[in-house]
Amino acid sequence: MAPDGLRARHDRILGDATPLFYDEPLELTEGDGVWLHTADGDRYLDVYNNVPCVGHGNTRVAEAMYQQARTLNVHSRYLHQGVIEYGERLLGLHHDQFESVVFACSGSEAIEIALMMARGATGGRGIIGTDATYHGNTEEVSKLTRLSSVNASSPHPEFRSIPTPQLFRPLAPGLTDTELTALYLSELETQIAAFEADGVGFAGMIACSIMANEGLPRIPAGFMEGAVELVHEAGGLFIADEVQAGFARSGRWWGYQTSGFEPDIVAMGKPMGNGLPVSGVTASHELVSGFRRTRRYFNTYAGSPLQAAAGNAVLEEIESGDLVSQVSRVGAHLRAGLDALEHPALADVRGHGLFIGVEWVTDPDSNTPDPDGAARVVEAMRQRGILMGQAGQHRNVLKVRPPLVFNDEHADLFLDAFSDAIDAVPATSVRA
Amino acid sequence: MAPDGLRARHDRILGDATPLFYDEPLELTEGDGVWLHTADGDRYLDVYNNVPCVGHGNTRVAEAMYQQARTLNVHSRYLHQGVIEYGERLLGLHHDQFESVVFACSGSEAIEIALMMARGATGGRGIIGTDATYHGNTEEVSKLTRLSSVNASSPHPEFRSIPTPQLFRPLAPGLTDTELTALYLSELETQIAAFEADGVGFAGMIACSIMANEGLPRIPAGFMEGAVELVHEAGGLFIADEVQAGFARSGRWWGYQTSGFEPDIVAMGKPMGNGLPVSGVTASHELVSGFRRTRRYFNTYAGSPLQAAAGNAVLEEIESGDLVSQVSRVGAHLRAGLDALEHPALADVRGHGLFIGVEWVTDPDSNTPDPDGAARVVEAMRQRGILMGQAGQHRNVLKVRPPLVFNDEHADLFLDAFSDAIDAVPATSVRA
Repeated sequence: MAPDGLRARHDRILGDATPLFYDEPLELTEGDGVWLHTADGDRYLDVYNNVPCVGHGNTRVAEAMYQQARTLNVHSRYLHQGVIEYGERLLGLHHDQFESVVFACSGSEAIEIALMMARGATGGRGIIGTDATYHGNTEEVSKLTRLSSVNASSPHPEFRSIPTPQLFRPLAPGLTDTELTALYLSELETQIAAFEADGVGFAGMIACSIMANEGLPRIPAGFMEGAVELVHEAGGLFIADEVQAGFARSGRWWGYQTSGFEPDIVAMGKPMGNGLPVSGVTASHELVSGFRRTRRYFNTYAGSPLQAAAGNAVLEEIESGDLVSQVSRVGAHLRAGLDALEHPALADVRGHGLFIGVEWVTDPDSNTPDPDGAARVVEAMRQRGILMGQAGQHRNVLKVRPPLVFNDEHADLFLDAFSDAIDAVPATSVRA
Repeated sequence: MAPDGLRARHDRILGDATPLFYDEPLELTEGDGVWLHTADGDRYLDVYNNVPCVGHGNTRVAEAMYQQARTLNVHSRYLHQGVIEYGERLLGLHHDQFESVVFACSGSEAIEIALMMARGATGGRGIIGTDATYHGNTEEVSKLTRLSSVNASSPHPEFRSIPTPQLFRPLAPGLTDTELTALYLSELETQIAAFEADGVGFAGMIACSIMANEGLPRIPAGFMEGAVELVHEAGGLFIADEVQAGFARSGRWWGYQTSGFEPDIVAMGKPMGNGLPVSGVTASHELVSGFRRTRRYFNTYAGSPLQAAAGNAVLEEIESGDLVSQVSRVGAHLRAGLDALEHPALADVRGHGLFIGVEWVTDPDSNTPDPDGAARVVEAMRQRGILMGQAGQHRNVLKVRPPLVFNDEHADLFLDAFSDAIDAVPATSVRA
């Protein structure tokens, strides 16, 4: 618990209503691997943070940053071996159609670039997302937001949304999975047609490859591939938001590999520099060059030797630690442990690798989303020394998303505490 | 000169048409203070780069980043002593009305925030800039751009511009300075009235405090103060873009101190972390809190312990090295040396501290801007081992903007080379 003085100074300096976790926010002082330490001397197992992917306080990344900052760090209007080598290494991890990359500083900037690229290449302006999405905080990217009530009542005419494709809360009851896939695809067709009817040229669709903010739904089989096909038929491009899904998070290098669809443009961010601000957008050489020519894009801090050094150290850590396999294995272990739990409010466990969602409901009959119950679980876990979060359209999905260096021992610590915590948090309808 | 192989790999990986300096781009390998080293073993005096403000390869900044990255680097939803202390220290350098700060990653993100803040507080959407400005690369901020031909033919209805206030190429000939100030202010009134006529609510005006991209014009006395007054009378807020002007660049801490005007919102960036991506927006606690409440703004990488550590080390270097005084003194020395030069194409020398513009014209009678001649000077300087750039509405202003640690000895090296270089580049009309 932070002393009142620090919280008051925080609010004065950063403004009231600055988002903070927990009613009594943690004052952090140190991090080490999957552990976070507070000013009170407490230690927490971090099952929330995806940015410090190769671990809090990672030595390789810190040293790479130090060496590069001591040696050279300039903008991208000069040539630099390290930047080019990092770009080549990063692209080598993607499918072959991803030939070139534009670097930026934040996920929001990456999505800005991806939208400009799709719009520039197609000549259209219309973008389709999901009805429970969030892709960033700039004026333009915010127009996509459907996660909160923002844009719900009066969406921007250039941004449309489709119902989030999912098996747990399907758009219509009683359908087979194949019928459900077709239904969600028909929703996409409807929105594409609506742009046409409005005279808004179609630029494409954007989606997180694993629909993280939507609550990690099990996406009906074939939806993503079908969506890419429909988007292409309508002259659009498909943007995969890999800001959360990428860099081994899913137990594969990229989230788009979990369902095997082939996006045209991929935006990357969060874990890319283990906390150093770095993001990027990759696509074909033609798409990237077209974007460069029309926008003359320049980003002061991006594509710098410092970004490349940190980014390269992250790749080195993921590869040398074989974290793709580890994430897959530990994630399966976590999933199995969660699947074995029984609780009337615990309605569904799903996800990929070390990104798991646990659907929390008021009762198993209605499956009504219970965000307040989920918040009580998060708080109960905090009391047990474990940090986790909430996600999804209804904020009722418990988010399990530790650093990639999370191992079986940590998974067991989490599972023991989670089992204990949910016993202390009865289902709302049972309790009521 | 870079080997062909590296340039080809650069274009393949980063896209064709990626902006690069010089026809034969420099391949940089190391930086040290005001010096940059190339793969060819050449050394260049850096009279261009403002981001590595406390010097290339600065030890204090690199070590601060290393120590913090080793210790802890997380997002801003936890409390962290270092972040709050940095915020307090940074705000302590500003005038009293700047009470709170929103951190971000890039200058573009800072301007995004400043626009949202002004619009949120006023309820208006209309923003006025200058006719030769550039404030960033996002979709929204790009609507302000007037420096290139972008937006020139069909500006967005929410963005208007006024002629850049200046003494060298005044809007009307034969006026006294006082009359000129009044004329430029009347242009501002005209644009405010035009928003009203269009039914677009007025949100405010944005300008770089020293109008750097406009070519560092001598701004008619009283214009900035008068503009703030007009903007306030119309219910708007004044945003000072200090991304280039701030952090001792002008020989004062902030560019707004060069003319003594009082903006409502200040955006900061470039030199803030000596190359680590960090930016920020400061305003009253009320404005910042209002922004926080309405936008629920969160930026994954921003307001992190890493940003704070780098930002704090930069402030420490500026203060312990008394760089504000040094910049003022060395800048005056540079100005005096440039003023003493005689060349038919060298029409005007102006600026603040270590940010000086040299107006290059075809001939002294017409004062026609000569961007090609300026480019020849830049190339001649490169041949003499010195890096400088071009700026301004007509790209004919030679930009002198070295790291802040530039001293008298470096200034003399620059002046000797510049004198020699301009002798080798005759005025265009003389040569023709």
